[in-house]
Amino acid sequence: MKAVVLLSGGLDSTTALAVARSQGFECHTLAVDYGQRHRVELDRAATVAKALDAVDHRVVKLDLRQIGGSALTADIAVPKDRSADDMTHGVPITYVPARNTILLGVALGLAEVVGAFDIFIGANVLDYSGYPDCRPEFLSAFESLANLATKAGTEGTGKFRVHSPLLKMTKAEIIREGVKLGVDYSQTLSCYDPDATGKACGRCDSCSLRKKGFAEAGVPDPTLYR
Amino acid sequence: MKAVVLLSGGLDSTTALAVARSQGFECHTLAVDYGQRHRVELDRAATVAKALDAVDHRVVKLDLRQIGGSALTADIAVPKDRSADDMTHGVPITYVPARNTILLGVALGLAEVVGAFDIFIGANVLDYSGYPDCRPEFLSAFESLANLATKAGTEGTGKFRVHSPLLKMTKAEIIREGVKLGVDYSQTLSCYDPDATGKACGRCDSCSLRKKGFAEAGVPDPTLYR
Repeated sequence: MKAVVLLSGGLDSTTALAVARSQGFECHTLAVDYGQRHRVELDRAATVAKALDAVDHRVVKLDLRQIGGSALTADIAVPKDRSADDMTHGVPITYVPARNTILLGVALGLAEVVGAFDIFIGANVLDYSGYPDCRPEFLSAFESLANLATKAGTEGTGKFRVHSPLLKMTKAEIIREGVKLGVDYSQTLSCYDPDATGKACGRCDSCSLRKKGFAEAGVPDPTLYR
Repeated sequence: MKAVVLLSGGLDSTTALAVARSQGFECHTLAVDYGQRHRVELDRAATVAKALDAVDHRVVKLDLRQIGGSALTADIAVPKDRSADDMTHGVPITYVPARNTILLGVALGLAEVVGAFDIFIGANVLDYSGYPDCRPEFLSAFESLANLATKAGTEGTGKFRVHSPLLKMTKAEIIREGVKLGVDYSQTLSCYDPDATGKACGRCDSCSLRKKGFAEAGVPDPTLYR
């Protein structure tokens, strides 16, 4: 059975791919280059896709810089050195307006074209609850929408399902699961502000959560920090 | 009050913009260049936006050719000279998988950034019922999703609304409404297969419906055919 897996090359989406593979899916991976990425990040997604046996990997460009509104797509500084408490209050400035709606929309289009009804996304609510479009009620609403939105969904040849296997796992649990499934986390890059060679800043929210996750999982952190 | 209006520069979306303007909205127009467009089509959208007093007009590039699956995004011939009966049976090959989900997703992102809660789309079910993502149940599901997907929707500062003022109008009714609201249809381009100068083929489904609409409305057709 085929699945489309949204893959950024970060820790979460890579683990979601490993989970999809372990469930027997033939995985079509999809990176959406929405203007946030250094070339090196797209390279990581391609590397990880290959390492985890994706049957094909596509990069769709979408220039969200025309819209802006986020530290990831506009000229707004990525926050550094925030406390765990800061990170779990409110919607952070790294929130990209309507991001997961758009990403899942593109994944849905690809799913329809390749004949897949299963879409995997590495969304997670526990560590970082500020993003509205990572919540279960959003994901479930998208699943309903998908079946109304498409030829495949309305013709009844199958039913779209949005899988978010990491949704309620802590970062440490995600890492342990990935290690069990053979993920090489040295290939992944989670930093919101990496340098051009792919070294992580070690200080943005994403780096902080990742570091803490490796520490709590008791797994050596293979990340290269600058 | 602000609105985001999806604008392709075609007959329907241009009329939707005229309707939004007539309702007193300050319109932010958005063209999504998803790989289907000749340069000339994007120019038409910009011209129409200006003519109808949009406060700003943006073009977001999204390369759906990576996904394909449609005569509008892949190397598949656009059907010509089909009968009205052919056009109203089944999902046509010009259907772009998950198109309106993606377009509305991008519009939602822009709405959130500019502080709009109203999104206009020129979707229409009567003339061309084959597209699943033009149906009222899809548009209503997207409206619910929008309020779960966003910071603005979840913080309760407003409620997103998807307006599809043309949904149940015939092409002739749309044209009459547009003429009443001052639309200059010579600026618009509906053809799925125009030449580089913007001349319409006159034979694709979109041209056929447009021609028939002008005839039924009793309005001279200002379209340049090649």
